[in-house]
Amino acid sequence: MAGVLSLTELSAAVTAGELSPTEHVRDACERLAADTHNAVITLDADRALAQAAALTEELARGERRGPLHGVALGVKDLFDVAGLPTRCGSDVLADAPPAVADAAVVARLRAAGAVVVAKLHTHEFAYGPTGDVAAAGPARNPHDPSRITGGSSSGSAAAVAAGHVALALGSDTGASVRTPAALCGVVGLKPSYGALPVDGVFPLSQTCDHVGFLTADVAGAALTWDVLAGSGEFRVATRVGVLVDDFWRAADPVLDAAVVAAVEELRAGGVEIVEIRTPMIEELAAVYPTIVGAEAWATHRHWVAERPGAYQPATRERLAVNADMPAHVYVDALRTRARLTAELRAAVGDVDALVLPTTRLRATPIGADDVDGVPVRPSLLGLTLPFNLTGWPAVSVPGAVSDGGLPAGVQLVGVGLDERSLLHLAGSVSP
Amino acid sequence: MAGVLSLTELSAAVTAGELSPTEHVRDACERLAADTHNAVITLDADRALAQAAALTEELARGERRGPLHGVALGVKDLFDVAGLPTRCGSDVLADAPPAVADAAVVARLRAAGAVVVAKLHTHEFAYGPTGDVAAAGPARNPHDPSRITGGSSSGSAAAVAAGHVALALGSDTGASVRTPAALCGVVGLKPSYGALPVDGVFPLSQTCDHVGFLTADVAGAALTWDVLAGSGEFRVATRVGVLVDDFWRAADPVLDAAVVAAVEELRAGGVEIVEIRTPMIEELAAVYPTIVGAEAWATHRHWVAERPGAYQPATRERLAVNADMPAHVYVDALRTRARLTAELRAAVGDVDALVLPTTRLRATPIGADDVDGVPVRPSLLGLTLPFNLTGWPAVSVPGAVSDGGLPAGVQLVGVGLDERSLLHLAGSVSP
Repeated sequence: MAGVLSLTELSAAVTAGELSPTEHVRDACERLAADTHNAVITLDADRALAQAAALTEELARGERRGPLHGVALGVKDLFDVAGLPTRCGSDVLADAPPAVADAAVVARLRAAGAVVVAKLHTHEFAYGPTGDVAAAGPARNPHDPSRITGGSSSGSAAAVAAGHVALALGSDTGASVRTPAALCGVVGLKPSYGALPVDGVFPLSQTCDHVGFLTADVAGAALTWDVLAGSGEFRVATRVGVLVDDFWRAADPVLDAAVVAAVEELRAGGVEIVEIRTPMIEELAAVYPTIVGAEAWATHRHWVAERPGAYQPATRERLAVNADMPAHVYVDALRTRARLTAELRAAVGDVDALVLPTTRLRATPIGADDVDGVPVRPSLLGLTLPFNLTGWPAVSVPGAVSDGGLPAGVQLVGVGLDERSLLHLAGSVSP
Repeated sequence: MAGVLSLTELSAAVTAGELSPTEHVRDACERLAADTHNAVITLDADRALAQAAALTEELARGERRGPLHGVALGVKDLFDVAGLPTRCGSDVLADAPPAVADAAVVARLRAAGAVVVAKLHTHEFAYGPTGDVAAAGPARNPHDPSRITGGSSSGSAAAVAAGHVALALGSDTGASVRTPAALCGVVGLKPSYGALPVDGVFPLSQTCDHVGFLTADVAGAALTWDVLAGSGEFRVATRVGVLVDDFWRAADPVLDAAVVAAVEELRAGGVEIVEIRTPMIEELAAVYPTIVGAEAWATHRHWVAERPGAYQPATRERLAVNADMPAHVYVDALRTRARLTAELRAAVGDVDALVLPTTRLRATPIGADDVDGVPVRPSLLGLTLPFNLTGWPAVSVPGAVSDGGLPAGVQLVGVGLDERSLLHLAGSVSP
């Protein structure tokens, strides 16, 4: 991966005329065509090269659409891209027609000059944090192809980690941007709930779905955020909380060590560190499968009845357990979520952000349900899903890896801190 | 009702020293004690008089808490008032202990000097627009005691219409402030969703519940809104929509005539009138019983199982039909609501407000399920509930009564217009 330019470097190189959109997009398409991580679902090289040629001509005339002018963009195959089918990693949508229009965030990135080069691998219907259950088979981690990428934005994480693209869109309902970013050693931002439009993105859970993106570094994430949300001021965080209850502890000590190292970086930068207890967290986290299960079942039940065999068995089973849920169970879960979110907000008090591991395990072997007795799925969901329930912005950044092995993700969560300010803080931990 | 002061007159008279809080509160308590409309559940005369005495002394020292200093306030018995039980019109809560704290809006009004004089009649658990199903029996309309007040804020509407109090709190999940205001000939404001806190108010539907209030006139409503929400600027509406589909037509021609008269008033004031079609309205309105039913059942199911006989039969039946609702039906209803609210918003376009009848019938005989074949309940809910689904602010004001009979409510709904601006517009229709 040496020699691959970061997003800010790419943006600068194209603007300076040192790298033409055509050169860059051709390189990205060649890399994606040769990908060995099962990251790519649909490579759209011809259209991408035609757009790159047009963008190259525009630059020659002195025209620049925006900071992403000519930059290759990967899109999780849960987002609509006009002219390409959206298959959501599932044979259920094997015959999906080409989408008529771009998803709203795809359109925003295109307006700033980005070139969609490929639709990327997703865990089937985004309903899993591992990235190994999909019509196309498992995605493979660029750091060790026998291991998972994490999911559900599996192909986005793999493609950025492998250096095929510097920017990829993902979605995050409980983990799906941050966990694959963590397992693949890249940066993944889940903005606050509703901050980016979900239009044109296949829903998993309308109350937990967040649109986000993955980049190789924090500077690239900050550039992308400005493109998507408009630029603005940021606030410097001065108090950061660490969560001391057992719930928040990783199973892999390298992950806890990465948080300790991040805390030391923050302290060295003058940030005050505050210990926080969250007695309600188990009860809050427990509503997650009820809420997502009810909402996912409402979307999928007709297809499950009509074409059960088109689903991967694990996905079908995860959906079907919700078939007989009474409405009051879901209503109660929403109420508990609102009540305990308020309690969690009170418990964290006046800190600007929280720092914690992104996952409890690093990338696990493909197909493994547990590792030394630690179950994989909850270990890749448990530390991220609370912030889908609360809607607070959260970013996973590559942390220090004390054993020199697989990547270790550190998660920073904004508490009354917007995305731009959160990314500024993240830059002090992982530049 | 002659000689009763409006809220703005009361506020001015107390401030000017022309009427002492003690005199005014004693008068209100005497009126409430002699009430013949079944409006009063708990008269709190001793505490009210003690508070009035304290407020009278404060005035003598030149101290004034706010615009409601010394003004008697009635509170729907769905809101907590510290020291009094909240019985919600139901024998289920016959043994409820005194509330520990005031509901948030009660506290705000007290902070501005208001004196709670009584808890007022409510349709049982606020689950009905008629006001005749309650542990205490039916509330009676001051304009004709053989007829309903409308509900669920039945006692609030009756007490204001009878001149017992100039201000009463109510709640509105589908009709419950506006419909009783319309049937009793007073003003009722349902603010936009979430504009006023529901803390300390017994829930019916967490996604449709709105806190509101009733006054004798629009000026009193505007004064109260400033107290509750803080004063500010208003915008003058220049375009108002009339809804021309059959759905929006009243069954009683006097109600349609009242809207025509209001439209003429608006035109005379320079407002442009625009005809609007809303093809999605039947489908949107159809999700209301599903959403409220699921949420109400989640709240009540334990009590219905344990003490079914403590409910009024009509309430128990309305609750129990939701017992077997699957979660996906409710999830689908929420999705349909979001989708069709967006469609309705697009259909109404760039008008500032809508003008329509508040109800399809005027006050009906107590106990009547239909009037000349027109069903009562849907006639008192159908024109108001769409704006609980959308969350837009709406106010009912007394309209012109072309036959000289019972009051006719005209509803104004804000579309991108805040409550203050909506009340300003309402003042041009019904001063």
